[in-house]
This record gives sequence, structure tokens and C-alpha cells, in this order.
Amino acid sequence: MTFPDLPDPQRAWAYLPASPLSGAAEGPLVGLTFSVKDLYGVPGWPLRASTRAPVPDPGESMLVRRLLDLGASAVGKTHLHEVALGITGMNGFGGTTHPFDPERVPGGSSSGAAVSVALWQVDFALGTDTGGSIRVPAAWCGVVGYKPTKGHPAWSTEGVLPLSWTCDHAGPLARDMRTIVQVQEALTGQTVAPQDWAGVKVGLWLPEGWVDDTVREALRLYAARLAGLGATVEAVPFPEVLDAYSPIVLSEAAQVHSEALKETEPGFLPFTHASLRQGQALTEEEVRAAFAHRAGYRAQLDDLLSRFDVLLAPAVPTPPPLVGQEEVEVGEGRLPLRRAVLRLTAPFSLLGAPTVALPSTAPFVGVQLVGRHGEDDRLLGLALALEG
Amino acid sequence: MTFPDLPDPQRAWAYLPASPLSGAAEGPLVGLTFSVKDLYGVPGWPLRASTRAPVPDPGESMLVRRLLDLGASAVGKTHLHEVALGITGMNGFGGTTHPFDPERVPGGSSSGAAVSVALWQVDFALGTDTGGSIRVPAAWCGVVGYKPTKGHPAWSTEGVLPLSWTCDHAGPLARDMRTIVQVQEALTGQTVAPQDWAGVKVGLWLPEGWVDDTVREALRLYAARLAGLGATVEAVPFPEVLDAYSPIVLSEAAQVHSEALKETEPGFLPFTHASLRQGQALTEEEVRAAFAHRAGYRAQLDDLLSRFDVLLAPAVPTPPPLVGQEEVEVGEGRLPLRRAVLRLTAPFSLLGAPTVALPSTAPFVGVQLVGRHGEDDRLLGLALALEG
Repeated sequence: MTFPDLPDPQRAWAYLPASPLSGAAEGPLVGLTFSVKDLYGVPGWPLRASTRAPVPDPGESMLVRRLLDLGASAVGKTHLHEVALGITGMNGFGGTTHPFDPERVPGGSSSGAAVSVALWQVDFALGTDTGGSIRVPAAWCGVVGYKPTKGHPAWSTEGVLPLSWTCDHAGPLARDMRTIVQVQEALTGQTVAPQDWAGVKVGLWLPEGWVDDTVREALRLYAARLAGLGATVEAVPFPEVLDAYSPIVLSEAAQVHSEALKETEPGFLPFTHASLRQGQALTEEEVRAAFAHRAGYRAQLDDLLSRFDVLLAPAVPTPPPLVGQEEVEVGEGRLPLRRAVLRLTAPFSLLGAPTVALPSTAPFVGVQLVGRHGEDDRLLGLALALEG
Repeated sequence: MTFPDLPDPQRAWAYLPASPLSGAAEGPLVGLTFSVKDLYGVPGWPLRASTRAPVPDPGESMLVRRLLDLGASAVGKTHLHEVALGITGMNGFGGTTHPFDPERVPGGSSSGAAVSVALWQVDFALGTDTGGSIRVPAAWCGVVGYKPTKGHPAWSTEGVLPLSWTCDHAGPLARDMRTIVQVQEALTGQTVAPQDWAGVKVGLWLPEGWVDDTVREALRLYAARLAGLGATVEAVPFPEVLDAYSPIVLSEAAQVHSEALKETEPGFLPFTHASLRQGQALTEEEVRAAFAHRAGYRAQLDDLLSRFDVLLAPAVPTPPPLVGQEEVEVGEGRLPLRRAVLRLTAPFSLLGAPTVALPSTAPFVGVQLVGRHGEDDRLLGLALALEG
């Protein structure tokens, strides 16, 4: 299907060429279309990262090129939360709204990516995920997302404007796991088989005070479903990692955008600008301490993943918030939205473990399944088996 | 989630009250919302059947009342193909468009119903199906639909404006079978368990000349999937039934709308008006012959359903056509859209067998699964098992 006169009331699209970039005539992805988050370099297409500030040119995305070579066609570029530094979808072009409710946010930073698949405009979307930027909009838009193991050779970040080289991942969103698996198989040349859940050891990370009643109930139902398939489910603890995540990401983001930051008013939205200035102001010691904390968290995650095959966790603390809403009510009280969301998703990008976001029984509430480093295909096979 | 300022560019909604009709405070459907096709009588809400012609008052829908008593809340009324006599979604109010492509039709006659679930505006939608009016829009909008056994006590057509009392069914559309099963269980008080496909005998009705390449391939993949689950799949023939279906439906529809037809220009769209006049002009002999043909088809279907547990068939001949498109290209050539569509779906409403429409691997192409008369819950259990 084609969408020649895309009305786009959600402002999902940053750039739509008159005709798509056609993929190769033959290949495993012939017939599939995809959208490209406007952080990926595509020759001939503008790159603005959904900001009015100047941004560096990352060169050409190897991943986009490879997908075209495999037969998929690129339809255009999608909007993101400004420079990918945020989780609602706000940017210098009015911001993207939820695909099905104009009063709510779609999540971000891969906001237009999630909208483009939720509205059936493409078969899959290229997003990026530094702290949850694929998983959060997937969860809030009712679609699926896959954040590969950090450095996965099939999911190159070469030619993608960085936010934080330590935490950045490239990955896809789609309406179903089947499509994600099809892309994975094409990129890797390996078959992804559905995996039996019988005997799978699941660690349930559900910090009850961090989510609202809707999410808590959805996670319990999800855990019960996995148990019904023969998995063993056991509750596990894991700490908040934002003391490591935030300094690393902000300091690296400030370096990425150092040219723009030389100007007094570079054109960023006020919150983005303040965050980048905060990143500039971090001392070497503060960043070094953050990396030290990260090493500790990595050891804890490695320990968990040695005892469990997969972790099950919420992808979001609540259903999608209203546009402009800055705080959210969870079990332990009112919290800034950014912290409430990121503390659920940032661990697995900070620590590089492969993670998928999948819809639950509650509308626009997703769960995360986290696998062992490098065991992406097993994780995808487990997720595929849940799709029937 | 609520949708206080529904933008409705698809024109799915015929009537949206300021606040929903709230369901009972307790019950198995508390928390679920539904839309009501504008053929159902709801006290205090207008009924126009998406026509500018006058229509009879059917009284109060017992089904809507029962769903409210079970705890579900009714959000408003959805548009349909004018008086339910057609399969595209055209009506006297501009017509409804596809949820995800403004240039295409959503299918009908339960067009707004399908759009309301595809766009997550409600959890389920009440539709009606006389020749395919639940299954066709479900298939073209990428959602699921369930046409119960004719006369199913849980799915009363009392208080629903008829099109054809011989063929009319009330039933639901939703985004997933899980929701349809939840409603079924609430209405019947019976549990619907997922059914094992191993050993299930599937009759594949795929008249190859009646569909296009996309649909043919989608059906083959679907059949292969069922075989992979242990079902045996065998191709079966079945004839075109429109020589029975059309006279019965048109003659009964002309009786339903006899008051309006006393006027020279009652306000129907030209095609609807011509069809109703054609129904008026049918002789008793022609209608009697149609019922005789129907008896023959019923014997053939009974024979098939004695040898097979379930039939698998296309729900639509092609993906959704463009608005205004009147012909469609299938294997055997160009055909009027109405005939190309109805000959796939009308058999199972003409003959009253329970049928679900489910998405396939091809976007906006659905399949039908047909069960034995009265064995609705087994059919729903088989469909549920496919959802994982």
C-alpha cells in the first residue's frame, strides 16, 4: 500500500521525498518499506535531528544502505525527541503526538518511528535507543521494538548522529515480532527459530513503587502467562542506575553538540539546551565516577543473567502521559516523568543487553524482555513464540 | 484512555454523546469500552443507519443493554455503509475512509465499527453481518471480527434495524481475539479455552480465480501455518451463492424500508435506492427459488462441515480498494467489487455458520475460519490459540 497524500496530523514525518528510495529488485526484504529516524545519514536527504540548532553530519548510514541492498525501500525520515535527548517526542517542530490520541505523547525519542509503524505507514522503522528511545515509544504506541546487544554487527551505528557513543544502539520497531525477525534474519543470514518457554528461567524485575496499578497488573498477568507456558518466574531486585547513566550521556551529548554550544542561542529547546550545558559543566571526576558506578551495575546484571535466561520488566511506568505533562504518579508518589521512565529502561542500554519491548494486555503499556549479551536471536525467538 | 476531542477524519462516528453510557459498576466487562453500529437502538441516542432517508425505529437493543449490565461502557454510534446494504462504507454522510489510508475504503457495512477498533478508540465494536459486514471491514482494517451462529442467544438482533432477517447477525469486532473471547465469556457464562490445532481437519476453500496474488499467497501461508501446528489441510470446493443470497436480502431489505420507498425521492444514495427498488420488483417465485437454492447450499456446507472441523477461506479478494473504485482485478479478470467480495463471505451468513475473520501475514488481508453451527466456542478457542 502507498500513502501518497499522508495527512500526518501527528507530525511523525520530518522528510518525505516525492518517491521512496527503492531497495534492490531481489533480496529477502523485497516488498517491505521502512522509515528512518532523522539521526541516520541518508545521501540526498536532509538531516536535522528534529532540532533548529545546527548538527554535525554523521556521513552515510551503513545500516540504511544494507537494508536497501536487501530489498527494503526507505519511505522518508521520521521526527524524534529533539536530538534524541528525551522520552516524550517534543522537538523544535511542534512535537509528535500519539498515533491514536492527539492529547497524549507517543514516547520518544523514536517518536515518529513508532507512529509510522502504529499507523501502518511502513512495515518497520529504524530507531535508536540510548536510554529507552526504541522501547518507550514502542510500549506507549502499542507496537514492538528491539534494542540489540550493544555493538551488534548487524545493527551498525556508523553514519548515525550520536547522542552517547557509550549507550547508543540502532534498532527497529514494527507492528509484530515476525517482521523484526524477518529483518534480523536478512541482516545476519541466520535463522531465528521460535523458542519453547518450558523450563525458561525468568527473573521478574517489577519495582512495585516505580509503576502505577495498571502497569503492575499488566506485568503480573504477563508473568502468569509465561508461567502458564512452563517458565519459572522469580522476582529479582535491581537498582536505579541514573547516577551512572545521566552523567555519561549528558557529557557525551555535550561533546557531540559542542559546535552548536559555542553559540549563545544555538536553537535548542530550553530544556535540551539546559541539559547539554549541564553535560558541558560535568567534571572529569564526575564522569569517571559514573563509569565506575556503571561497572558495578554491569556486574549485578551479569550475575542476574547468569542465574536467569531472561528478565521480564515494565517498559513504562504508566500508560502514555498527556502532552506537556511533566510529572507522573506511580506507587511511591509523584515523580518527574523523565526519571520515572528512564530508570526502567536505561539499565539495559547503559549495560548493552539485548532487549525487546512487547505489548501487554493493558493498552499502550509494554513490557521488556532482556536477554544475555550476544544472545539476541534466542531472545527474539522467545518473543516470536509469544506471538503465536 | 479517553478521547475527548476525537478528530475523526475518517468519519467513523455517527453520534458521540458528551459522556459515554456507563456500564454497571461491577461485572466481567468493567473497564471495557465499545462502539455501537448505528443500526442498534439505544434509548436517548439517535438512529439514522447512516442514511438521509427515514428508517423504522427498531426499539431498544437487548445486546447493548446486556453489555452495559455486564460492566462495559458505550462510547457512541459508528457509521455504516448506508442501511448496511453494501461493503465499502459509503453513505449519505460522506462515507467512512480507511483508518490508515485516506484514499482507500475501510470495508463495510460495519465500517465505522472497524475504524473505531483499529484506531484504539474503543476495546470492541458492535457490528452486524448480513453478507460479510463484520468480516470484510475487519479484514481490510487489520482487526478481528466474529459472526456468531445465526440466532445465537448471546448475540440478540432484537432492537437492531434489520436488513434481512434471514441473514442478519449481530457480532463484535476487536483488535484481538482475547477481547472477543472475554465478551463471549461474559455474555454466555461459559469459559472459552484455547484449542489445540493438532489433528484438526481443515478444509481450505481457496477459489484461486476469485482472489489476487497477494490474497492467494497469504492464504497459502496461513494454511502452511495451520499444518505446522499439526492440522491436516485439504482443498475443498464450494459454489458461488449470490443467486440465493441477493434475492433474499434485497426482497427483505425492500420490506424493511417499505415506508421510505413510498416516497419518490426518499433520500437514499442512488445505488442503495436502485437496489431497494430491485428488491421490491422481485416476484414471489424468484424469492422462493432463492430459498430453494439456499437449501441446496446448506446441504453442501453441512456435508463439508461433517468432514472437516473448520474451513479456512479468504475474507476479501484483494487488499482494500480505493474510494470510488467499482471493479477489482482478481485471477479470473475484472469484476464488480460487490460480487468479488460477497461471494467469499455471503455463504456463511446466508447459511448461518459461525465465522471469524483474522489478520493474515499480508497487510489488510484477512482470512475466515468457519466452524460448525452452534460450535462457536470451539471456533473461538481455535482462533484464540493462533494469537499466542
